[in-house]
Amino acid sequence: MYTLSECQSIVNEHINKMQLPVLPENLYDPMRYILNLEAKRIRPALVLMGCNLFSDDIEQAVFPALAIEVFHNFTLMHDDIMDHSERRRNNLTVHVKWNTNVAILSGDAMLIKAYELLNRVHRDALPEILPVFNQTALQVCEGQQYDMDYENRTEVTIEEYLKMITYKTAVLLAASLKMGALLGGSNEEDSNLLYEYGKNLGIAFQLQDDLLDVFADPDLFGKVTGNDIVTNKKTILLIEALRASSGAQREKLLHWLSLTNFDKDEKVKAVSSIYTELDIPNTVRERIDQYHRLAIGSLERLSKESVRKEALLSFAGYLLNRKK
Amino acid sequence: MYTLSECQSIVNEHINKMQLPVLPENLYDPMRYILNLEAKRIRPALVLMGCNLFSDDIEQAVFPALAIEVFHNFTLMHDDIMDHSERRRNNLTVHVKWNTNVAILSGDAMLIKAYELLNRVHRDALPEILPVFNQTALQVCEGQQYDMDYENRTEVTIEEYLKMITYKTAVLLAASLKMGALLGGSNEEDSNLLYEYGKNLGIAFQLQDDLLDVFADPDLFGKVTGNDIVTNKKTILLIEALRASSGAQREKLLHWLSLTNFDKDEKVKAVSSIYTELDIPNTVRERIDQYHRLAIGSLERLSKESVRKEALLSFAGYLLNRKK
Repeated sequence: MYTLSECQSIVNEHINKMQLPVLPENLYDPMRYILNLEAKRIRPALVLMGCNLFSDDIEQAVFPALAIEVFHNFTLMHDDIMDHSERRRNNLTVHVKWNTNVAILSGDAMLIKAYELLNRVHRDALPEILPVFNQTALQVCEGQQYDMDYENRTEVTIEEYLKMITYKTAVLLAASLKMGALLGGSNEEDSNLLYEYGKNLGIAFQLQDDLLDVFADPDLFGKVTGNDIVTNKKTILLIEALRASSGAQREKLLHWLSLTNFDKDEKVKAVSSIYTELDIPNTVRERIDQYHRLAIGSLERLSKESVRKEALLSFAGYLLNRKK
Repeated sequence: MYTLSECQSIVNEHINKMQLPVLPENLYDPMRYILNLEAKRIRPALVLMGCNLFSDDIEQAVFPALAIEVFHNFTLMHDDIMDHSERRRNNLTVHVKWNTNVAILSGDAMLIKAYELLNRVHRDALPEILPVFNQTALQVCEGQQYDMDYENRTEVTIEEYLKMITYKTAVLLAASLKMGALLGGSNEEDSNLLYEYGKNLGIAFQLQDDLLDVFADPDLFGKVTGNDIVTNKKTILLIEALRASSGAQREKLLHWLSLTNFDKDEKVKAVSSIYTELDIPNTVRERIDQYHRLAIGSLERLSKESVRKEALLSFAGYLLNRKK
């Protein structure tokens, strides 16, 4: 059985070996650039781990794993344009380092490249995994669209928010595992259990991301704690706080949300105090635990001996015990 | 045997029936919008005609035909952003009617949707046509990149220009025919002959487009004649003229290219006069004929009785005898 870090190494090795054309430079250089930024390779590693649960031959899952990583990086390249992000993993984003046109077209070519990599699986496996990939890719776009739509709305329900993060983040983790499982020879039921495991873990992960943005140690987290508060981002914390607050407390929260000129530190301090008063961190932690339990439950119901599930069990721990 | 216009009707019927999700609106409305603009449906019709050359059952090629049309419209949506085009087929472009983010993301989803449609062929056919589609889609991106790169260069050779239009325009026509042929049961050799037919016809078509921009009747052409001259676009006419001119004539041409303030009509008149003096229209017409002959030659070598080739023969005439 391969561990997470072994799978990550295998993925990195293959990404380093990946041959991309040289010309036109403005199409392929940005691909090489974004793929070579330091990254955890979680999603492609999950393809290999999903496969390994059912088969000792994980080589067959390498190209689909690379497809998932190339697809993921395509979404990052285009999301960075849409979100006007200037930095990604401590480096300039592609649309800043080159320009927007380059980032659009190079991203498009990456999406096609992802399909080309997917197409390198055994021809019998293709009709099984391509629909999973297609559906997931569309959902990721839908999730990004909902995310942008919500920016312009005053109120977003918890259900809407959960759907958005499910599509934008969780389904790709889920599909990575499912595709790996199908390649490894899993039956439909087991591959769906693995999908549920990945999906619920992905939701828990995103909720924790929201929590850590405000309540993590800034030295560990690497970005300024509270950035979501500064930008009025509709995180689970804000949505829960808007739901739970009333009276003067709610007035105070709405007041901070409405200000256009403010001291950032002061706003972060004031809003996070309201969150604490409302016990939001615990409310969110309970939600995280709930999705974590759902994930583990799915893993337990899988028809494989416990020893084969160990890597995925410890992956859940790794993902959710981070402090940054 | 189906004629071009019958194939176009079949395509239109299926596009009208195509079910796209409703939500999120900003993702799917732009898809519906661009797909419902009046269009000739040449490429998807070629998929059906390519299939029909080898099989009477063209139903099997309908989904790949739709995939090609959706892919083509994805490229239009993104190209319009990159080229800052405000109108497309007498309507607002998506990034103008909505915004750039919507056009980026909706275009991405269209590319995925194209693969989803492609995936609906018989599962045995998928491994044959997917690589053709992938390679072509990447070449289309490369062609667009070269086109943008050439905008910033002072000199472009004829070979570079021909490669650019081959990738940007011709290979999609070629691949449409080849994919149709493979679905209809063609052997490798015939499908490649059909690819060559489509590719050379596509090159001839693009060269004619350049010619008609300057020398077409403006009432028929629908756009202001000479727009390429106004914008210094590196068309076959300009490249040939830069190659053929010398002395005072070349000075005059370079002078007009260097002006930033000028009367548009005056510039079009002056540059097109130089083209005429240099006999560029005939030089270009000869090139068009050359590629036309290559196309017909490939069609003739195809191992099918002449009667089955009639629709494609008349298609070549239709495409190249247009006056606008």
